[in-house]
Amino acid sequence: MSFLETKHLLGLRGVSKNDLRTILDTARQFREILDRPVKKVPSLRGVTVVNLFFENSTRTRISFELAEKRLSADSVNFSSSASSLTKGESLLDTLKNIEAMKIDLVVVRHKGTGVPAFLAAHSDAIIINAGDGANEHPTQGLLDIFTMEKRLGSMEGKIVTIVGDVRHSRVARSNIWGLTTLGAKVRLCGPATLIPRNLSFFQEVGVEVIADVAKAVEGADAVIALRLQKERQEDSLLPTLREYRNFFGITAEVLDRAKSEVLIMHPGPINRGVEIDSIVADGPNSVILDQVTNGVAVRMAAMYLLSGGRADE
Amino acid sequence: MSFLETKHLLGLRGVSKNDLRTILDTARQFREILDRPVKKVPSLRGVTVVNLFFENSTRTRISFELAEKRLSADSVNFSSSASSLTKGESLLDTLKNIEAMKIDLVVVRHKGTGVPAFLAAHSDAIIINAGDGANEHPTQGLLDIFTMEKRLGSMEGKIVTIVGDVRHSRVARSNIWGLTTLGAKVRLCGPATLIPRNLSFFQEVGVEVIADVAKAVEGADAVIALRLQKERQEDSLLPTLREYRNFFGITAEVLDRAKSEVLIMHPGPINRGVEIDSIVADGPNSVILDQVTNGVAVRMAAMYLLSGGRADE
Amino acid sequence: MSFLETKHLLGLRGVSKNDLRTILDTARQFREILDRPVKKVPSLRGVTVVNLFFENSTRTRISFELAEKRLSADSVNFSSSASSLTKGESLLDTLKNIEAMKIDLVVVRHKGTGVPAFLAAHSDAIIINAGDGANEHPTQGLLDIFTMEKRLGSMEGKIVTIVGDVRHSRVARSNIWGLTTLGAKVRLCGPATLIPRNLSFFQEVGVEVIADVAKAVEGADAVIALRLQKERQEDSLLPTLREYRNFFGITAEVLDRAKSEVLIMHPGPINRGVEIDSIVADGPNSVILDQVTNGVAVRMAAMYLLSGGRADE
Repeated sequence: MSFLETKHLLGLRGVSKNDLRTILDTARQFREILDRPVKKVPSLRGVTVVNLFFENSTRTRISFELAEKRLSADSVNFSSSASSLTKGESLLDTLKNIEAMKIDLVVVRHKGTGVPAFLAAHSDAIIINAGDGANEHPTQGLLDIFTMEKRLGSMEGKIVTIVGDVRHSRVARSNIWGLTTLGAKVRLCGPATLIPRNLSFFQEVGVEVIADVAKAVEGADAVIALRLQKERQEDSLLPTLREYRNFFGITAEVLDRAKSEVLIMHPGPINRGVEIDSIVADGPNSVILDQVTNGVAVRMAAMYLLSGGRADE
Repeated sequence: MSFLETKHLLGLRGVSKNDLRTILDTARQFREILDRPVKKVPSLRGVTVVNLFFENSTRTRISFELAEKRLSADSVNFSSSASSLTKGESLLDTLKNIEAMKIDLVVVRHKGTGVPAFLAAHSDAIIINAGDGANEHPTQGLLDIFTMEKRLGSMEGKIVTIVGDVRHSRVARSNIWGLTTLGAKVRLCGPATLIPRNLSFFQEVGVEVIADVAKAVEGADAVIALRLQKERQEDSLLPTLREYRNFFGITAEVLDRAKSEVLIMHPGPINRGVEIDSIVADGPNSVILDQVTNGVAVRMAAMYLLSGGRADE
Repeated sequence: MSFLETKHLLGLRGVSKNDLRTILDTARQFREILDRPVKKVPSLRGVTVVNLFFENSTRTRISFELAEKRLSADSVNFSSSASSLTKGESLLDTLKNIEAMKIDLVVVRHKGTGVPAFLAAHSDAIIINAGDGANEHPTQGLLDIFTMEKRLGSMEGKIVTIVGDVRHSRVARSNIWGLTTLGAKVRLCGPATLIPRNLSFFQEVGVEVIADVAKAVEGADAVIALRLQKERQEDSLLPTLREYRNFFGITAEVLDRAKSEVLIMHPGPINRGVEIDSIVADGPNSVILDQVTNGVAVRMAAMYLLSGGRADE
């Protein structure tokens, strides 16, 4: 059914360059639709999507929901908080039941790494991972790459620096896999406690770790500041937020060390004055709000392609 | 307006054989639509439905919501948990207000027996009972019968055994009334504490109580295992879950005593290893996931017929 | 874009007579649509609306949601209770993010006075205030005026008495500004502790305060009983509910002092036996349920006009 080589979108790891290109190129067309007065196409009329959010994320849920509505799909929200679906029921039984209602596509977010892959292995529905544990968040990776390409052209040979809590970041992982497949060079920077301990997989695709933020951003075409979860302090993984900002925050001083046209990115929501200063987040290099807009287009493209545009166009 | 003799769907008790046939036959057509790529018809375009769930039930709510969307109705969800609608307001005032917004159809679930009937008596909107206390859950009864008929043909003379907590089960009641109207024989089986004390109404329509589960399933065409609410233990209505399973669980041994082609059913969600064993629930006799699919079709049929297909077809 | 002089609907204060007339006259057309079997027009197809409710209000939210669906807009709900959108994020960042998803219209309810105006000042989206603190609730004012005009004709020279907790009432404020712009005379009545302390703004537009409820309703064409928040007792702003009813409740005795054709109104939900007696609320003078119906029509009109009917009609 899928117009892609992959049947599901579980992560960007292992997704072919071909598939990445198809999604990014299709997203460009949907991006144009978002600037029209009528931001809607009939592509997925009669297709049913369930947004299965076991982890709260209004931002991501709304982005997917808008993408679904603008494709004319019928969508239903399931959030585990307000739910009795799972009363004594296994995750697989929940999926089997939802699937039995003739759902075409399931968007799933779950704190457990591998949950989307597990569901894909046991389901006929198309699964899109909207974030699983510290594993992947592929549509975020795609929207980041889409945003970079729009400004920078081909990512081949471009340098992207990811700063912050890489260890717990699914955003970082999806960017690493997607960017390196497209020929970009990725640099990681963050406190030693927040850099993954086993880097061998990343090093295989040429990822570098640079401890000093000023050096890490030097020559970079784009810098992604990751959101810092304040809970990391309680886990004793970092001293104070002030110290974090002093060493790893994207400040005006750090920006001065970068190329003048460097793109400043953040997956949101922002902790202003922690991982990024307002003067940078709201400054001329920032494409943070572009990322949000592009997210809707990328999600439209992924859903459209995975369901093979199978409705009645 | 209604294409049925009944204006509302409050229960299956008292619903004519004629109406049952019309709903079941119409559901067959909607069931076919669910297998198409475009699972949507314009039948209820411009019709407004409110899902008024005073009791949590994601599963039933999603099934109704999908039925509404696939009929092209506009639907709005109301769940009392997240609600301020009822701040100091009576149930009737809540209904009157919703009705004043020009709602055509109200799907209501409430822990109080008789709430849907009360609302129907005081409203111009069409009321569908999605479960009231220990009274009825008519669309569940209909989807069970639909599932049986699909495999067994006419229910005339067929034997259906309902096992478990019949006393507190609205699913059991709706099945009893619907099945006996269509000429089936119903057997009840469960711990004495969980069988209704006053059986006279059921006995009038020929329902039998059989204490021994092996005897109860013998010769049955279908067995419905009811969900066991674990709270029943706290009410001192049953000893232990293990003992319940030993006496009333649908196990491989029990299945051996039944006809080889017996249908195994359950309204969900399943407590695996309590009222039914996995080997049975996932085995070749199980039609449990069929029930879920058919539920959407039956709900589409009920809403379509009750609103007289009144939109602009 | 807007068909009105105003770009947003933040309150009725300062809205021109011209704009009020356009909204009220357009609402009349939408009101007729609500009586048809197909209660839906394609006016806002492809337009996206976000319902941003930081304060719970199922009633208002459902009314807006129905208005949006009946205009064929795509709408998405955001309620802060079930939300992680705001985790450490400022209100403005939340709005900027939502806006970046290419939202045309934001309906916002917030306990903070001035929040909708603040958002309007920083956003390209059209903002409709669905209630901000004790400031305004303009669509409620409009629906009240629409309901009065339907029965009374032009409001020029008509007398409207507002009884109750005027001090904390956004409903009262929106009515005062809208009604006086249209030439009506407004009287306020309530316990001294619940009448605004600074009345100069209201007095400028000719609003009178009358302490005695019998005198306040005498000769009035319409009486609006405000909902009494029971929390006011805890704030020591009123003695007992019984005493409140005795002095300010709209009872049969109070009604006897009014014109025989006086309209009795209430924004809901009603505290029966406190601010209004059932015999009055359910009596022949009551237009309380009319208000609810008209609310949907008025909201359709406001959204349609503000977005300039900008979709593909």
